[in-house]
Amino acid sequence: MFNMVDLIEKKKRGQALSRQELDFFALGAARRTIPDYQLAALLMAIWFRGMTAEETRDLTLAMVASGEVADLSAAGGLCVDKHSTGGVGDTTTLVVGPLCAACGLKVAKMSGRGLGHTGGTLDKIESIPGARIDLSMERFVAQVREIGLAVIGQTGDLAPADKALYALRDVTGTVDCLPLVVSSIMSKKIASGAGAIVLDVKTGSGAIMRDLESSIELAKAMVDVGRLAGKPTLALVTGMDQPLGTHVGNALEVKEAIDILAGRAKGRLLEVSLRLGTLMLVAGGRAAEERQARALLEEALASGAGLEKLRQMIAAQGGDACVCDDTRLLPQAARKIPVRAERAGYVAAMNTAQIGLASQRLGAGRLSKEDAIDPAVGLVMDVSIGDRVEKGGVLATLYANEKGVEEAEALLRGAIAIAGEPGDAPRLIDALVRPEGVERF
Amino acid sequence: MFNMVDLIEKKKRGQALSRQELDFFALGAARRTIPDYQLAALLMAIWFRGMTAEETRDLTLAMVASGEVADLSAAGGLCVDKHSTGGVGDTTTLVVGPLCAACGLKVAKMSGRGLGHTGGTLDKIESIPGARIDLSMERFVAQVREIGLAVIGQTGDLAPADKALYALRDVTGTVDCLPLVVSSIMSKKIASGAGAIVLDVKTGSGAIMRDLESSIELAKAMVDVGRLAGKPTLALVTGMDQPLGTHVGNALEVKEAIDILAGRAKGRLLEVSLRLGTLMLVAGGRAAEERQARALLEEALASGAGLEKLRQMIAAQGGDACVCDDTRLLPQAARKIPVRAERAGYVAAMNTAQIGLASQRLGAGRLSKEDAIDPAVGLVMDVSIGDRVEKGGVLATLYANEKGVEEAEALLRGAIAIAGEPGDAPRLIDALVRPEGVERF
Repeated sequence: MFNMVDLIEKKKRGQALSRQELDFFALGAARRTIPDYQLAALLMAIWFRGMTAEETRDLTLAMVASGEVADLSAAGGLCVDKHSTGGVGDTTTLVVGPLCAACGLKVAKMSGRGLGHTGGTLDKIESIPGARIDLSMERFVAQVREIGLAVIGQTGDLAPADKALYALRDVTGTVDCLPLVVSSIMSKKIASGAGAIVLDVKTGSGAIMRDLESSIELAKAMVDVGRLAGKPTLALVTGMDQPLGTHVGNALEVKEAIDILAGRAKGRLLEVSLRLGTLMLVAGGRAAEERQARALLEEALASGAGLEKLRQMIAAQGGDACVCDDTRLLPQAARKIPVRAERAGYVAAMNTAQIGLASQRLGAGRLSKEDAIDPAVGLVMDVSIGDRVEKGGVLATLYANEKGVEEAEALLRGAIAIAGEPGDAPRLIDALVRPEGVERF
Repeated sequence: MFNMVDLIEKKKRGQALSRQELDFFALGAARRTIPDYQLAALLMAIWFRGMTAEETRDLTLAMVASGEVADLSAAGGLCVDKHSTGGVGDTTTLVVGPLCAACGLKVAKMSGRGLGHTGGTLDKIESIPGARIDLSMERFVAQVREIGLAVIGQTGDLAPADKALYALRDVTGTVDCLPLVVSSIMSKKIASGAGAIVLDVKTGSGAIMRDLESSIELAKAMVDVGRLAGKPTLALVTGMDQPLGTHVGNALEVKEAIDILAGRAKGRLLEVSLRLGTLMLVAGGRAAEERQARALLEEALASGAGLEKLRQMIAAQGGDACVCDDTRLLPQAARKIPVRAERAGYVAAMNTAQIGLASQRLGAGRLSKEDAIDPAVGLVMDVSIGDRVEKGGVLATLYANEKGVEEAEALLRGAIAIAGEPGDAPRLIDALVRPEGVERF
């Protein structure tokens, strides 16, 4: 039998923990048999000492083994999951999911809530009148089988160790720890039962990892764990130096996804979605290679088949699918307040996390887990990095109800740096990480 | 208002915490308003990052301020406290306390229980039939006033933050952390109200710090905190490469103290006691300088005045003072089992901690806090480092009742290394640490 103090001492001294020790740790966390103070001490020791690739894999698998693994065998094909490490205006799931499903891929996605400055797919879906994300596993699998696409919240039966450890990390200063981030994400992805995983690792001022090398390191660690765990995994490293889409906020992001699928909007969000979809179609065996996959996706977009899949998914999950034809049926904010530039110049940089917080302060995100969110509020960006602005020109428009307007306006204005010279536009796709290596763009 | 996550993040990044932040931490620990998992995370971050001298002082004072400070003003003079970091056969309190009190010093001592392989003064006193260590503060101070000497357990009202943090450190792998050791010891000493503090920092195989430089570092840190806190503090660094006295176990150590005070025994225990007593008398203003102090102590020993003080203390604390005249009135073990050398040679080294554990296994110490101890059992060493032994010669004698004989014998035998050549006897007094600097011997 293992003793938690021995594990703490071992890691404290910089030694690697064994699979058996990590099993003991993860099971003890999931079953609440190890007291939180000992879990916290070990988490902090891991923060300082790190983990080897083998330890990270073993911890991930131990967290998977702490609960059930979803059985997607009845979904009628290889399911591909897609996961973003979190961003602002990052609505890729609602664009790429329908497009891939329209191309015949089985997309079975378990999503999360918004956290801090980042939005969450579940909150976005719930902004659609009537739509639910709490389907049973049976209903979830049946929906994937029938229409090829379903998005639900993760059930507590999957990777319960992660649930316990994540809650503890959040209040013990141990969130920003690569092996813990990797094992948290990958345990949930592996437990969710997909046959292949495509990751969207964000980098820049709105991402967990703000510099490119750290983001690539995170991507490599996750792809490595996927490989060691026998689960095909790829990661695209994409820019989060400005919001990905122009719309930030729950119903606003649903609107942007619909506008894209309807062919009315283009831009960075569409481009990243197509790149992710390309990888997903190849991983899922729906296309032989990337060029073919891209052509299939563009066809699904042009034909409206993608929008039709979204319509089917919303209807299947109890929502009002008419929003796909009239986005004014989505919740609407009472006020639209333009935020204007105080000087002329070029948009040189954005603090994207702060833009996310501006939206949060309007009510689009939670300050604490108990907070309710307002589906209608958020903001729409009028500028991108590199754009010319005149004094008094609109930088963004706040979509507000009662709360947070002044704070959001100050945050937003402070988040956009205007300079005399146009700088370089940041890269959108930075790297593709495969088990075989890293391809930089 | 402070946020515990901010404190954890700050220490994690290697920044120093302020007095206000450490007050928040210590008060939160004492009042149980900060959850244990956050305390544990901060303790582990402190283990990795350490603390500056100012932080260590501030944490110590914050822990003092978390509870009451004993008021010894009614004791009738400057009280001097003495504290050992813990050793084996380390009965100095019962020798130096009576001798100093016989020289007119006020000795008001709050002691602890045995822990791990080390013995505790409270357990030793309780081995005397009838003796109690749970006097009220009023009774304690009155006894110091009347006879100059009292030894009690620390009350929970003093440094409650230390009580909470110590219990947590014990189960989170954060015991061996210099600033935490220093603040734990010094907060209790300062809260116990003495006017001056003399520390006995052990070094060697039976001490917390096994090498001399670490022990001197610990001594310097404690003396430094004493200075910064305005409490005169000195530290003697003394050898624990073998048991200090020949007797290990509770009643056995009381017997050795009585034998020394009665003039029947000499040796290392007496010598360290006299050195500590010398410092205590000077610190307490009972002697102008060390030579005079030593002469006073030797006179108190020769005249029997020291033994008379012990007799008075035992009687005042409800014990049978006749043990001072007939040590056979102390609890006696049923069996005496000699442990013999398996080869001839010289005693080259001892694993002193293991000798302490041998005594513990016989029942003299606790494996867990709930264990009862057997006052009668323990062992008596027949050899010191450097001694010649013949094959079959007695190394030590176990004093046993029912339990632990085989295990204790194996531990003891394994703890004594016999070599072909006589090595150097280890130094008994290694260093004296004063605020002005370190004097090495």
